Amino acid sequence: MSSIVGENIKVSVFGQSHSKAIGVVIDGLPAGLTIDMEELKAFMKRRAPGGKAYATARKEADVPEFLSGLVENTTCGAPLCAVIHNKDTRSSDYENLKNIPRPGHADYPAQIKFQGFQDVAGGGHFSGRLTAPLCVAGNICMQALRERGIQVAAHIYRIAHVQDRPANLTDLTQAELLKVREKEFPVLEDEKGEKMRQAIAQAKDELDSVGGIIECVITGVPAGVGSPMFAGVENRLAAAAFGVPAVKGIEFGNGFGCANLRGSQNNDSYEIQEGRVVTKTNHSGGVLGGISTGMPIVFRVAIKPTSSIAQEQDSIRMREMENAKLVVKGRHDPCIVPRAVPCVEAVAALTIYDMLCC
Amino acid sequence: MSSIVGENIKVSVFGQSHSKAIGVVIDGLPAGLTIDMEELKAFMKRRAPGGKAYATARKEADVPEFLSGLVENTTCGAPLCAVIHNKDTRSSDYENLKNIPRPGHADYPAQIKFQGFQDVAGGGHFSGRLTAPLCVAGNICMQALRERGIQVAAHIYRIAHVQDRPANLTDLTQAELLKVREKEFPVLEDEKGEKMRQAIAQAKDELDSVGGIIECVITGVPAGVGSPMFAGVENRLAAAAFGVPAVKGIEFGNGFGCANLRGSQNNDSYEIQEGRVVTKTNHSGGVLGGISTGMPIVFRVAIKPTSSIAQEQDSIRMREMENAKLVVKGRHDPCIVPRAVPCVEAVAALTIYDMLCC
Amino acid sequence: MSSIVGENIKVSVFGQSHSKAIGVVIDGLPAGLTIDMEELKAFMKRRAPGGKAYATARKEADVPEFLSGLVENTTCGAPLCAVIHNKDTRSSDYENLKNIPRPGHADYPAQIKFQGFQDVAGGGHFSGRLTAPLCVAGNICMQALRERGIQVAAHIYRIAHVQDRPANLTDLTQAELLKVREKEFPVLEDEKGEKMRQAIAQAKDELDSVGGIIECVITGVPAGVGSPMFAGVENRLAAAAFGVPAVKGIEFGNGFGCANLRGSQNNDSYEIQEGRVVTKTNHSGGVLGGISTGMPIVFRVAIKPTSSIAQEQDSIRMREMENAKLVVKGRHDPCIVPRAVPCVEAVAALTIYDMLCC
Amino acid sequence: MSSIVGENIKVSVFGQSHSKAIGVVIDGLPAGLTIDMEELKAFMKRRAPGGKAYATARKEADVPEFLSGLVENTTCGAPLCAVIHNKDTRSSDYENLKNIPRPGHADYPAQIKFQGFQDVAGGGHFSGRLTAPLCVAGNICMQALRERGIQVAAHIYRIAHVQDRPANLTDLTQAELLKVREKEFPVLEDEKGEKMRQAIAQAKDELDSVGGIIECVITGVPAGVGSPMFAGVENRLAAAAFGVPAVKGIEFGNGFGCANLRGSQNNDSYEIQEGRVVTKTNHSGGVLGGISTGMPIVFRVAIKPTSSIAQEQDSIRMREMENAKLVVKGRHDPCIVPRAVPCVEAVAALTIYDMLCC
Repeated sequence: MSSIVGENIKVSVFGQSHSKAIGVVIDGLPAGLTIDMEELKAFMKRRAPGGKAYATARKEADVPEFLSGLVENTTCGAPLCAVIHNKDTRSSDYENLKNIPRPGHADYPAQIKFQGFQDVAGGGHFSGRLTAPLCVAGNICMQALRERGIQVAAHIYRIAHVQDRPANLTDLTQAELLKVREKEFPVLEDEKGEKMRQAIAQAKDELDSVGGIIECVITGVPAGVGSPMFAGVENRLAAAAFGVPAVKGIEFGNGFGCANLRGSQNNDSYEIQEGRVVTKTNHSGGVLGGISTGMPIVFRVAIKPTSSIAQEQDSIRMREMENAKLVVKGRHDPCIVPRAVPCVEAVAALTIYDMLCC
Repeated sequence: MSSIVGENIKVSVFGQSHSKAIGVVIDGLPAGLTIDMEELKAFMKRRAPGGKAYATARKEADVPEFLSGLVENTTCGAPLCAVIHNKDTRSSDYENLKNIPRPGHADYPAQIKFQGFQDVAGGGHFSGRLTAPLCVAGNICMQALRERGIQVAAHIYRIAHVQDRPANLTDLTQAELLKVREKEFPVLEDEKGEKMRQAIAQAKDELDSVGGIIECVITGVPAGVGSPMFAGVENRLAAAAFGVPAVKGIEFGNGFGCANLRGSQNNDSYEIQEGRVVTKTNHSGGVLGGISTGMPIVFRVAIKPTSSIAQEQDSIRMREMENAKLVVKGRHDPCIVPRAVPCVEAVAALTIYDMLCC
Repeated sequence: MSSIVGENIKVSVFGQSHSKAIGVVIDGLPAGLTIDMEELKAFMKRRAPGGKAYATARKEADVPEFLSGLVENTTCGAPLCAVIHNKDTRSSDYENLKNIPRPGHADYPAQIKFQGFQDVAGGGHFSGRLTAPLCVAGNICMQALRERGIQVAAHIYRIAHVQDRPANLTDLTQAELLKVREKEFPVLEDEKGEKMRQAIAQAKDELDSVGGIIECVITGVPAGVGSPMFAGVENRLAAAAFGVPAVKGIEFGNGFGCANLRGSQNNDSYEIQEGRVVTKTNHSGGVLGGISTGMPIVFRVAIKPTSSIAQEQDSIRMREMENAKLVVKGRHDPCIVPRAVPCVEAVAALTIYDMLCC
Repeated sequence: MSSIVGENIKVSVFGQSHSKAIGVVIDGLPAGLTIDMEELKAFMKRRAPGGKAYATARKEADVPEFLSGLVENTTCGAPLCAVIHNKDTRSSDYENLKNIPRPGHADYPAQIKFQGFQDVAGGGHFSGRLTAPLCVAGNICMQALRERGIQVAAHIYRIAHVQDRPANLTDLTQAELLKVREKEFPVLEDEKGEKMRQAIAQAKDELDSVGGIIECVITGVPAGVGSPMFAGVENRLAAAAFGVPAVKGIEFGNGFGCANLRGSQNNDSYEIQEGRVVTKTNHSGGVLGGISTGMPIVFRVAIKPTSSIAQEQDSIRMREMENAKLVVKGRHDPCIVPRAVPCVEAVAALTIYDMLCC
């Protein structure tokens, strides 16, 4: 197990869906960083399920309590610990899952790895709920990055067959990107968002779920951050992004689209603009040889459709080693993509801030 | 900089394209592992450029010399160091690149990061040549994995618009997969391979390059390897895969295809087959919640088209801060996808072996 | 900052002396380990100040609350978080220390490092109080080690000029060692303990403090644990031991006594005893070339006299950059050696368990 | 195994006493550092055995060949690899050691750990010879530190019963310390050095060896380097120092002497001197709470007497599991303390430079 990420700023996430509390320790934050608690609350709200049509019915305020690391909301150099107490838990929903694993969930490999001792209630440590403390840590880093002129913003790039305008290939301003973060349903083009909501609603009606893609843009990172080979921006962002449950892929700039392109189409030409070196396009997603180019860092992550669906599915009884039918109970999101948007921003912020603090 | 990868088996790659030698130190290999030097040589040949139409004209035998760590070809527990001496270097080809960065290359961000002290000859430490020591390390791990019944095999999944048969969704046997590794042009369907070669040849004729996708399958990994959050199979494989130059994306199982799928389509149902737990499909790519399911681990990486192309491109003169035209000299592959296949296998083997040795 | 220790089992300590809580996250504990809460409580009591003549007047129950990682007192594989709420805090005692640093304390270097943002109340993150969560983690590891036949026991080796019988050079049984842990004042020879108490009392009367040496023995570690160079038993134990505040030295086996010895005196001859390989003596402290020999691992740590003394001392006013006199307020131990004994056991247990779990 | 040390500047040592070569990879050195090769050679000579009465008869020039990482003697940001080819090897001297372990050597635990596959010739990876590449890395860091006004100098503090003047407690100038490094026998008081040589000669005559203590001083480190708990200056220096073979203890400032001291004697009072904050004494060895105080960092390491002695010793035959007599052949130093002095400086420089580069 390692629910710890970061080299210089080490973020250690703990908790299970139905444990007393979930939380995070951040070791290595510089002293003197004042945290805007209102901004943090607003950020947490973006991830929280409360009342959204596409989200679980579970209600959690998700207001972190800071146990250490702060003196009057300012970091003091000591490790910061924030906890969120779990309240609205219904563990009885999960009782039979220890023997009958849910398809698409970690139940079966967890059973093998933890030999039956894993906490199965609410998904245990595998629950998407663990992204709440990740968002606490992410927003703190985001606030620190902003002081350096670095902004992180993500939007829903695709849900089902509906695609938003790509941020990568347009002349999107930073202001526009930040505005998308304010939206309850963060897309660049709202009519596309409407269609996405419909696709989610339809899946829900059919006792099913849908997946999607999130695109994240980090602006303001100076050229020269990251290293060739194994400590590059891409390596580090990828390693962190797969920490968000349900992420199944990551690509930078043109990403998988590169396969269809010629070098002459994919290369970004340099030019001097107002005394600064820029590239005319940003097909590389702001990273070459693992090192930031000074252009926006652009990446997309693939999010699988929620594996907990209300339809009957084929599974097995592990103790009896026989086939079985399963209907998953509990409260689940028909599409986690919207709520995953701030989580992707969080891991992006954590990673970039960690790389800058070295 | 960190050209070191691995937690338990630490692989440290060194060298520049035109330095005296390139090489690798592997720290943490268990003692008693006998290396089949013929197999290693054969593996290195798959990566070597020698005489292939789609490869650079540079000739290097790439036979590693072992400086330490072996006693009569058997690991002795001490760190293993293997070096490959550079011979066919023509550094004069690269002289002007320190001022005029090549589009799509790391020249510009490296100049910023290393303040002009970087070794620009042949791409320096950013050169694809550094994958040679990576392959030495990878093949050693591959040999160790095979003793545990684990095999790693990759094929060209796509070049330009030509796509091979996916390994993920078929009833491909391990035997077939291993056979593909023997091929000079590793595709499952040779007629597709022929079309891919044509696409490469055409790009070369047009002084251009093409990208592609490599698919890698790891069979025999038992269920229970990896951890939730940041030490999962996906996090670790992704972090290592971006260490291969030109990789711009990675996806597991259905990957980005998830966006278009319903949960009912993407979930893998369990069943009992011959007394073993298996999934009927493998849309997850063999990983759930970061932990291996016991099914084949399947991932694909996107490879960008070679950035060094013979066409004139727009660039800048950094010292003068003015726009400039650039024609890249040197010897380059019009498509690096075929030679990257063993490199992807190498990082896959390194990562999985490292995870098993914990 | 890094208050994290361990490679496989990562222990992350957080909190300040007067923060809401102090605590620890343990990431990487195997699932299925049942914690004996009574034993843990008894262990914590050994460290707790409560009512001991040589200890601070501050009263803290130090009963950890487990927020995560346990299901009915058994580890579930998820990171374990334990917190201890701070209660008896008197922050006003520390107000002037931000400007007038206490001699022998971290006040001055902390002021420079954290630029005045450090939490100065009660010593902040530098407080000996932070060893409470360390002891929680240590005792959990101790319980896990015992299942493997490994025991950790320490005693007071020396306080002021009074020296206990060395454990290293005698035919001390494991049973005797474990008995010493039960004692309120853990020495092998109680009459020496009595003299040590007198030395402490005398120092206290004279508004002063005394230092000492703690000797720790780890029995049952099989031969073959640890590695040459930088991952040896000595490297790892030393790195952890200096995490206990006030430790100023560590030595293994004959340690600094080696200087006066000949090779013929210091070498431990091998012999066969009841079919097992043993050494006739244990001058090496159970470690050769970084690797355990199978003999008891024996080390000693030097503990400096408590720096907070009630006498007037010379200091400075940092803001005014002028010399000043200081009388330290607050409640302090005239000798922390007795309470540091379980802390040394804790870091020993953490380290050895971490090395065995690789 | 981990022969890798460092967090930001990772030093990976490889080689066995009789392998083709020994060497080091340094990953993370900043670009633009010009290495003075003459200084490096002079430093290597201090460690080299050549012709010294107290050293082995083995002759090795120990001139490193740089395979990568340098362009015209200046670091280019890529990992630096330096190798030293082994020449004067006589492996036949060591044949019987695989079965009959040498007392005081790692032979027995290595046999258990590496299951008989370890390279036994010349001590394999456990050989003191591996400190040669460590010294290469250390001197490079030393050169980099000097540009920042930081100097590292060690002297022989004690051999057998002869003690040099302590550097800690005197008003030794930096100039004096640097002068001691020039001496062939590095002591502050030459008459003591003469007596030490006599003690070594006498031990040699009696087919025996002697141990000693080395004291190392690091001047010019600013206040504020290091962290509380596990990333302090003491933790890091200790972890690295035990990487030098034969080190059995480390202490900072008053170290084990603390046991006999009162707080009023051990505390270092602050005062303002010429507008700077200093302490009147330096009993802490320049570190409080893990953080540098700005005063010289002073530590001592205990070096055990060479375990290879020419006297007959009691051992065992491992295969036959019976007692045996052993006479160690090979060429050995009757006292390794003088040659270990630059090695201690090397690990000190590596560690401090690594901590400053974070």
